[in-house]
Amino acid sequence: MATHSEAAICRVHFNPGNIDVAVERGSSLLEAANQAGVGLIAVCGGAGTCGNCKVLLEEGVVETNRTIKLSDEDYNCGFRQACQSKVMSDLRVRVPVGFKLDNKNLTRKIAKTTEEILSGRALTTGWRFSPPLRKYFLKLPQPTLSDNISDLSRLLRSLRKEHNLSEITVDFDILKKLPEVLRDGDWQVTVTMLTISVDSKPAATRKQSKIVNIEPGDTSGKHYSLVFDIGTTTIKSQLLDLNHGLVVDEAVEYNSQITYGADIITRIVYCQKPGGLKILQQAVVKSINTIIHRLIVNSDIDKLLIGHISVAGNTAMTQILLGVDPKYIMMLPYTPTANYFPTIKANSIGIDVCDHVYLTTSPLVASYVGGDITAGVVAAGMHRTKKLTLYLDIGTNGQIVIGNSSWMVTAACSAGPAFEGGEIKHGIIASDGAIEECEIDLSNFEPEIRTVGGVKPMGICGSGLISIIAALMQSGIIGQNGHFNTEIKSDRVRQGDDGYEYVLARGVNTESGNDIVITEIDIDKLIRAKAAIYAGFRTLMNSVGFESKDIRRVIIAGAFGNYINIDKAIVIGLLPDIPRNRFKFIGNGSLTGARMAEFSTDITNAVGRVACLMTNVELSEDTNFMNNYMAALFLPHTNIDEFPTIDKKLMDQKAGKYGAN
Amino acid sequence: MATHSEAAICRVHFNPGNIDVAVERGSSLLEAANQAGVGLIAVCGGAGTCGNCKVLLEEGVVETNRTIKLSDEDYNCGFRQACQSKVMSDLRVRVPVGFKLDNKNLTRKIAKTTEEILSGRALTTGWRFSPPLRKYFLKLPQPTLSDNISDLSRLLRSLRKEHNLSEITVDFDILKKLPEVLRDGDWQVTVTMLTISVDSKPAATRKQSKIVNIEPGDTSGKHYSLVFDIGTTTIKSQLLDLNHGLVVDEAVEYNSQITYGADIITRIVYCQKPGGLKILQQAVVKSINTIIHRLIVNSDIDKLLIGHISVAGNTAMTQILLGVDPKYIMMLPYTPTANYFPTIKANSIGIDVCDHVYLTTSPLVASYVGGDITAGVVAAGMHRTKKLTLYLDIGTNGQIVIGNSSWMVTAACSAGPAFEGGEIKHGIIASDGAIEECEIDLSNFEPEIRTVGGVKPMGICGSGLISIIAALMQSGIIGQNGHFNTEIKSDRVRQGDDGYEYVLARGVNTESGNDIVITEIDIDKLIRAKAAIYAGFRTLMNSVGFESKDIRRVIIAGAFGNYINIDKAIVIGLLPDIPRNRFKFIGNGSLTGARMAEFSTDITNAVGRVACLMTNVELSEDTNFMNNYMAALFLPHTNIDEFPTIDKKLMDQKAGKYGAN
Repeated sequence: MATHSEAAICRVHFNPGNIDVAVERGSSLLEAANQAGVGLIAVCGGAGTCGNCKVLLEEGVVETNRTIKLSDEDYNCGFRQACQSKVMSDLRVRVPVGFKLDNKNLTRKIAKTTEEILSGRALTTGWRFSPPLRKYFLKLPQPTLSDNISDLSRLLRSLRKEHNLSEITVDFDILKKLPEVLRDGDWQVTVTMLTISVDSKPAATRKQSKIVNIEPGDTSGKHYSLVFDIGTTTIKSQLLDLNHGLVVDEAVEYNSQITYGADIITRIVYCQKPGGLKILQQAVVKSINTIIHRLIVNSDIDKLLIGHISVAGNTAMTQILLGVDPKYIMMLPYTPTANYFPTIKANSIGIDVCDHVYLTTSPLVASYVGGDITAGVVAAGMHRTKKLTLYLDIGTNGQIVIGNSSWMVTAACSAGPAFEGGEIKHGIIASDGAIEECEIDLSNFEPEIRTVGGVKPMGICGSGLISIIAALMQSGIIGQNGHFNTEIKSDRVRQGDDGYEYVLARGVNTESGNDIVITEIDIDKLIRAKAAIYAGFRTLMNSVGFESKDIRRVIIAGAFGNYINIDKAIVIGLLPDIPRNRFKFIGNGSLTGARMAEFSTDITNAVGRVACLMTNVELSEDTNFMNNYMAALFLPHTNIDEFPTIDKKLMDQKAGKYGAN
Repeated sequence: MATHSEAAICRVHFNPGNIDVAVERGSSLLEAANQAGVGLIAVCGGAGTCGNCKVLLEEGVVETNRTIKLSDEDYNCGFRQACQSKVMSDLRVRVPVGFKLDNKNLTRKIAKTTEEILSGRALTTGWRFSPPLRKYFLKLPQPTLSDNISDLSRLLRSLRKEHNLSEITVDFDILKKLPEVLRDGDWQVTVTMLTISVDSKPAATRKQSKIVNIEPGDTSGKHYSLVFDIGTTTIKSQLLDLNHGLVVDEAVEYNSQITYGADIITRIVYCQKPGGLKILQQAVVKSINTIIHRLIVNSDIDKLLIGHISVAGNTAMTQILLGVDPKYIMMLPYTPTANYFPTIKANSIGIDVCDHVYLTTSPLVASYVGGDITAGVVAAGMHRTKKLTLYLDIGTNGQIVIGNSSWMVTAACSAGPAFEGGEIKHGIIASDGAIEECEIDLSNFEPEIRTVGGVKPMGICGSGLISIIAALMQSGIIGQNGHFNTEIKSDRVRQGDDGYEYVLARGVNTESGNDIVITEIDIDKLIRAKAAIYAGFRTLMNSVGFESKDIRRVIIAGAFGNYINIDKAIVIGLLPDIPRNRFKFIGNGSLTGARMAEFSTDITNAVGRVACLMTNVELSEDTNFMNNYMAALFLPHTNIDEFPTIDKKLMDQKAGKYGAN
């Protein structure tokens, strides 16, 4: 292969994967990777500021714009940021493991949550099994001259007589095929009906039953639907058996949009490019279709038997999926387009299911409090309890709900990407090799680390970060302000390119051969992230006249939340210092809520009511929030009285190590 | 031009019109005419049995299959049946005036009905002006951080506060453009809402308001809709001003489907050919689009301002328009697909209006009692009166409704094409030159005829036929059995090719130069047609225990009905012999009802209720109907007691002419 070609078309060969792709000379290497289906995680959306899309150039020439995200060492090895590089010749490119979207990285997570979810992780009670999608087998009397009402009237009459169903609408496409289906089935047919709202207000009690399919004969024995949690990073799905209320199978995929930016804002910005919204919509649909294909193949279920799709996602993900421009979500004063989107045909947006399948989205509250939260709150049973409850979904954006069955307030705050390993020097997503736990030996300041998959360390994920910082703090290596204690006598603490840092793993022990460190800048980023979350729920709580100690239940939701060590999260001041038994994990509340809504119209209705019940509070311009945020930029907090048990621990630690102050 | 060409492609030149069309050698001449847009009336759908598509071959060669429908005289002149002829060379073809669908033939009719309809021909009362399609101008408060609900919620809140509107759904397409429209209009927008049913039962009281359009600024000052009566032969339309409840303009066109067959059955049969349904759907849509174009050009109204389309038509016309196969309408036991079709996007079936325009169809009762009848019955106010009413729509199919505000029974009977001039030796449609009135001088049996347009006679239309037969009967030229009285001494009565005939106009006075006659066979056809109608309402009346004399009101509907002379219709036994002042004409009740439904949800609801109120009776296999039919095959009837005033007249006539019996 020539190392330099003058031809207008260049071939780029990616490894691992052995994928070739032809691009025009001068094209972006990131785009070439996208074209090749090599999912690089461009956290910053191609701006060059995250450094996550770096690849090893093994052969060929690129024109690159070097940023501070590439160390001398990496640069000299041949690493380049794909987003900053133009393809100038045929290339051989190696994508470092851990920076590539590889579906097997998700197995750890799902392996754990599968079991939890299948065993009925939902915390709510008091609902009947009554799926909004139902099949009814009907034996109709044949028409005669003295009973020659229209085919549809005959059908409606039987539905009324045999199932007490009335106020039914019918899809026009179904009506067109009705006469042939009735006769093909010799007047024995199976009708699929979907209960949908007759109102754009999600709390509407007015519902209509819509005939969405009709088939000859009795097909009522098999009846499935799909639920999706559309996350910014991952898409999780379950295939549901609607006859028996069972989860048949589940699957997870990275959201293909990730190659266009890691966070919501980057995605919304991308949507403003010409054709950008369509590209992102197609990207998420591609991931959904991959999941659908895998689920039906694995379960050996005919695609025809899937009758409905239900989706819960944050507001931006919901709007992008539906092709509704999310522009105003990120512009003051942050208005979403609607709280409740009409039910649409799934294949109208490219989802690979049969014509009759409708897609319903979970109602949302505000630009940053989406359908994932309304579904999760109901899954947690928060709408049925009188106990004051705090619902927390921690991620790049933190979503907070406080209230009970009578009232709910909600807010969102931006924590930045730190909890997902983003913009941390050695931060990576929670894939194999990510440091997820860390203890530090108080005697010699040596760390004991645990990685995802138990393999050689490759970087630090969000839960690892919390664990590391708690350990650094509890060992006295860093102070409450997050600065390194330079009195520590250990070569683990040293001056690096970015100031002081702590060596978590030495090069001899790591996958890359380079040291893995945590820097003072990283620690500062985590402190800002945890301060935003803490200030968020504190401000929201104060706005309704409560304090942390009043909270009777804390629901921790989200994939990240699943892996938080409560004690350590309290140590760093991320979570309030209240009795540990008040904390409950709900895992993927969004998917659980969406699934339950497929099993019960009680839940569907409850999600709608919750969406209307919630009052959204905007924190971004709130001075109380800013004050709370400033006060929380400390480990665990400037006001140590808010963390009585940590106060005591810190005193104990210090006493043990340095003697009493 | 060569008279014979071996080339595979032949050019056919049609006159009048000076239209050239290229077809493959061997193509049907009827299809060539269709392709050229020369609307030949193929009453039989191309079977060769009606003889209506005959054209004059001026030059060139055709291969023709001569049928009995072509006289020696015509054949020798060069006339050929287009449907029976294959194009074998380049041709010059002349289409006889009167056999070509020429829109100006419709002007007489509309000139009369325009005035009547514009002056408020509808007979019903007690309705409020409350169009189902409304525009609302809204000034929304701008969003702020403390009021940043979704764009849709903001809109719904204003609709609720300012107009007390709730339970609103919104079109997904509208939602997509909502954010930009709100901001383009600086939060001042005009919303168009359509009230539609939430039920497939037409009588449903549950309605929802659907936002079908949103525009920046105040566009509420101009607001229009279109109503159509889709008849088997003609399509009539009115452009309505929904702000002022006015008819802005109206237009009429032949239904382009007529070139594929004149009656409903022929059309349904055509739909069973591959692609046939689509061809007929496109044909009617083509006529609709022609009308729309003309209306908006003539009225100088922007197409954007048309917000809704409402259609009333018989069951087959409704189903074909919507693309719903009408197959089972003509098969025992005659079941339509539905009584009420969902509201659909008008442009989804090719109608040339803006994306946001929905099309609503009038609900129907049975395969042969359609949305034209339900609309007409309400227009006639039959649903509001306690008086026993007979509603009669006479055409190829007669539709009969008997009842009042509490109950209604309905039936249809096939009268054949005689009332529309079909299958009558010199029958033509009611265009210029059609004999529409006839009196016969009792002294010399000479006729006095009046033609449409006052021009030279060209043939006989339906109303003319009634008038002629009444005159022949009253002058004693024919007997009560419809046979000629051979004792009559007049050269007007003679033996012709088809048996006895009466010369209405001699060749010297006619357009074609040939005599125009009425034959005993023609008379027999009319007797059968009138017998079917009379037997129909008599059977229906008896089935509910009434007789003719009980009827307090007779509503005569339909374009044909408009031109019936009541006295003469009673003379031949088509209408019951009751006091003449009980008869009312409603003209095009279908269009009137559809228009009123656009002006008032009261009427929309009433049409739905009427559709559910009506009980359909199938006459086709009813032995009472057969008995009544046989008894009615006499002028006016075998039981002359049913026609007391005619009995007396006949006696008087006979006494005057031949002396007392």
